[in-house]
Amino acid sequence: MAQNVYDNQDFFKEYIQLPRQVEGLDGTPEWQDLQALIPNPKGTNFLDLGCGFGWVGRWAREEGAESVLGVDVSEKMLSKAVGFPTDSCVTYVQADLESFELPINKFDIVFSSLTFHYLKGLPVLISGIYRSLTPGGALVFSVEHPIFTAPRNAKFIEDAEGQSIWPLDSYLSEGSRTTNWLAEGVIKQHRTIATYVTILLEAGFTLSAIIEWGPSLEQVKESPQWADERKRPPFLLMKAIKGNSS
Amino acid sequence: MAQNVYDNQDFFKEYIQLPRQVEGLDGTPEWQDLQALIPNPKGTNFLDLGCGFGWVGRWAREEGAESVLGVDVSEKMLSKAVGFPTDSCVTYVQADLESFELPINKFDIVFSSLTFHYLKGLPVLISGIYRSLTPGGALVFSVEHPIFTAPRNAKFIEDAEGQSIWPLDSYLSEGSRTTNWLAEGVIKQHRTIATYVTILLEAGFTLSAIIEWGPSLEQVKESPQWADERKRPPFLLMKAIKGNSS
Repeated sequence: MAQNVYDNQDFFKEYIQLPRQVEGLDGTPEWQDLQALIPNPKGTNFLDLGCGFGWVGRWAREEGAESVLGVDVSEKMLSKAVGFPTDSCVTYVQADLESFELPINKFDIVFSSLTFHYLKGLPVLISGIYRSLTPGGALVFSVEHPIFTAPRNAKFIEDAEGQSIWPLDSYLSEGSRTTNWLAEGVIKQHRTIATYVTILLEAGFTLSAIIEWGPSLEQVKESPQWADERKRPPFLLMKAIKGNSS
Repeated sequence: MAQNVYDNQDFFKEYIQLPRQVEGLDGTPEWQDLQALIPNPKGTNFLDLGCGFGWVGRWAREEGAESVLGVDVSEKMLSKAVGFPTDSCVTYVQADLESFELPINKFDIVFSSLTFHYLKGLPVLISGIYRSLTPGGALVFSVEHPIFTAPRNAKFIEDAEGQSIWPLDSYLSEGSRTTNWLAEGVIKQHRTIATYVTILLEAGFTLSAIIEWGPSLEQVKESPQWADERKRPPFLLMKAIKGNSS
């Protein structure tokens, strides 16, 4: 089973204070670009893996999704989700994504935000997602960018000129990375971009879009503290189609 | 027109002493992985863009290609190419890839090694390659990896612990980078991985494979001086298909 850091009391206390948890999609700077990758939810069966507080499922329902299923490993997260355990909007299931059995040929859109980089067994899950999609269905997801997850010491440092640089090393050495993000000992799985793409292609997907996300120059102007995020992208966004994209 | 550093006397003098120029494909550590991406050349029309000394075209002909065309901007390079200006093996053309007019529906395989990162007008060239391929034809190419081209100071430095790290910055700021590689003032075009993929998809290609290439652990064992190359990949390899890959 994947590490479930979200049910760690210390982590959770910090986590729910992040802007993206307090403000939802409005506090999620990459949402606009991620949303642009998602097909129109109207009339679709929509699955959100690692749904957390359920912001995106709620959005999908507001956009006219026929059904929305949100899955998350964390009871604490789900207990705060909009309408948990179920309402007219969204159905929630608490489950470990490494072993969750997805129904076959069911969903038109599978979505996942900042979840896959916690999972060791990602190839198995991606194959399951492929089977769970209807023909022409789309998988849209984000993860922490491999450049972000790679370093032993994942913090900006100053070079000899006093400029902040990202101390990249061990990019090609994939596997677990233990970080102290909000709590001690959070374990992430570092994979290269090529590995994410290869997992998709080997499952049968057609790659449809890829975005190495950092704030735009306009967003940096509004939030100058984000300037360094353009030096190394924090997020990787992808869209893959079951079948041919054309 | 693209900068033609290869016809710079100082650069060329250094360049022809690189192992990959002296030893050809045997001195090119990524060749084995690149070769694995290339469809069987037997009976094909094969195009090599930025062919240099013509090693790959020669290989393609030995593998049974029906025709091989090698194009390079550098007269100096071509004058050293096997059988230049033409022999039973390969036809060579000296031309600027930014303005070279490719024939329509002609080639089964288009190949390019470590050339595209010199070109400002890459999207136009990629669209031309797409049109020049026969249906189901393949484009296989390598470029310097975006992590390699990104930094202002593209040299390993030591962190506080004395470990060598790659000083990544300005990854999302695309455009020209001036480096002193073999000669002063060599200009490369930095693009992100996402941009390379997007250029391919927008031209109509299906992405078939992507490799962020660094030496394998076995290669590092044989050549310990390559250890740092696993910290940040030096090369990016891609394969794209005209049509659907399935």
